[in-house]
Amino acid sequence: MSQNDSIAGIRNVTVVGGGVIGASWTALFLARGLSVTVSDPQPGVDEAVRTYVAQATPALKALGLDTSSLTARLSFEPDLAAAVRDADLVQENGPERLELKHEIWQTIEGSAPAGALFATSTSGIPATEIATALRDPARLVVGHPFNPPHLVPLVEVVPGARTSQETVERARAFYRDLGKRPQVVRKEVPGFVANRLQAAIFRECVHLVTEGVVTMAELDDIVTSSIGQRWAVAGPFRSFHLGGGEGGLPHFMSHLGVGMERRWADMVKEKVAFDEATRQLLTEQAEEFGGTVDELAAERDRRQIAVMRALGETFDA
Amino acid sequence: MSQNDSIAGIRNVTVVGGGVIGASWTALFLARGLSVTVSDPQPGVDEAVRTYVAQATPALKALGLDTSSLTARLSFEPDLAAAVRDADLVQENGPERLELKHEIWQTIEGSAPAGALFATSTSGIPATEIATALRDPARLVVGHPFNPPHLVPLVEVVPGARTSQETVERARAFYRDLGKRPQVVRKEVPGFVANRLQAAIFRECVHLVTEGVVTMAELDDIVTSSIGQRWAVAGPFRSFHLGGGEGGLPHFMSHLGVGMERRWADMVKEKVAFDEATRQLLTEQAEEFGGTVDELAAERDRRQIAVMRALGETFDA
Repeated sequence: MSQNDSIAGIRNVTVVGGGVIGASWTALFLARGLSVTVSDPQPGVDEAVRTYVAQATPALKALGLDTSSLTARLSFEPDLAAAVRDADLVQENGPERLELKHEIWQTIEGSAPAGALFATSTSGIPATEIATALRDPARLVVGHPFNPPHLVPLVEVVPGARTSQETVERARAFYRDLGKRPQVVRKEVPGFVANRLQAAIFRECVHLVTEGVVTMAELDDIVTSSIGQRWAVAGPFRSFHLGGGEGGLPHFMSHLGVGMERRWADMVKEKVAFDEATRQLLTEQAEEFGGTVDELAAERDRRQIAVMRALGETFDA
Repeated sequence: MSQNDSIAGIRNVTVVGGGVIGASWTALFLARGLSVTVSDPQPGVDEAVRTYVAQATPALKALGLDTSSLTARLSFEPDLAAAVRDADLVQENGPERLELKHEIWQTIEGSAPAGALFATSTSGIPATEIATALRDPARLVVGHPFNPPHLVPLVEVVPGARTSQETVERARAFYRDLGKRPQVVRKEVPGFVANRLQAAIFRECVHLVTEGVVTMAELDDIVTSSIGQRWAVAGPFRSFHLGGGEGGLPHFMSHLGVGMERRWADMVKEKVAFDEATRQLLTEQAEEFGGTVDELAAERDRRQIAVMRALGETFDA
């Protein structure tokens, strides 16, 4: 990819909000040859974003991207109206409060070019609710990344009730050509899909640890050495389809469905909460992870990139 | 590894039950240089096990194991008492019915050498219940693999109430030296750990598909492109620890714990069951997987081996 290229017709991106998600998007957009303006009124945001980009650079390089002179196409403009004036895409990563989102998007709509694509990284607020502040709600779609966006392939594209099909298709095409794995979600549900699945499994994780069946570290080892490796290559449905023998998923449901329903009935009755005792236990056990969060995250990312390379999900195929 | 070697003092294994799990254990034991006697009264079991071993051979080779003359150390003995006479380890994979397990283990105990290690692959019956049939319940432990055992690293080692610490340690050492990732589970709970976690997430998977939020294939794509890749390298606790910024898991709990508890409260109220409509929908969507179960499983295993190689979890490190 040459410098200052365009992806699916998008050349200039305005990243609204320079927190961790915004900074990670920024790093990826730059490494894919786009020009990025970051808009955030916080003092020091330019420093923080530049630091994040520098820290993400080894990972971007390992993914096969061109990381030479990354920050040559990076600029900062705290004034939101000015920041979006030449945007082809606005990727908003503001605080998760509806009234703030409304303010932000009204300013954006009042100043951005008529053809600009509007995407919000929100993990919790439906596009339908954010878009009530817009004159043209058809332009806005959720483009929810999995953290960190410069690394994890998934982007959940979630249209609101009034999002146009054209907006959905433009967003999908952009994220796809950016090298992500966008997935359009068919209905707006709280948490969308990936975070709901995380919450569902985490409830049982917390239960098993508070019951003393395993420690946190032991549970993590169980996951990485079984379902994690499986689900990196085949999701839960496909895994059960292939675990059911020749009869596939229908056989699985006939054969093991009743047992699973019984397990579900027991599970929903479990009392699981982040009460004081639970917090204390998990906090104690978290100390066993060792290392700082930054060190452990770098190690995790290095290993994940190795997995992505093995699966051909990088840019050097 | 030279031929006919021993692993943690075990040279001769008797595999009881030549179904899919027994055949997969057999393939792995052979590829690690052990001698294996398969005992199963079903006619044609020798043919079926040999076919399975032949089909598993490319995967074993890709894992870095020596697959030359694999079946030279393989024999069949339908008579259980005769089959276990020289066993250092009995790995039992019989039907999941308690009265049958009792019969099988009584016969084994009556005929196996006094020092033989007793392991059951059961996924559903606690060692405590199986061991009531034994004169010496201290000898028996659950060694529950994740299917297929010749590929997926995890073995859940689950002691019963009367299993001796020595038996637990011997089993753990054997599976570890075999190249697996054994995990001792601290309490006997139905489904142990990995299958409980699968059940927990699968409930929400089925809910999201029956609600029309995504299709099965779309949900699988979401998992493989996000949490699957993550959990192949860092389990759920470590992932949330590293997703909480500098504050780690304690910060995550303070910051997002309440939101997650609210999500849990909603989820446990969802009605999810394999009723007629659900079965029909999932059966229809399963047709979209395309290919036969064997073809899809081979593709999945090929990709998983690539992941395992990337993570250094094979035998050619």
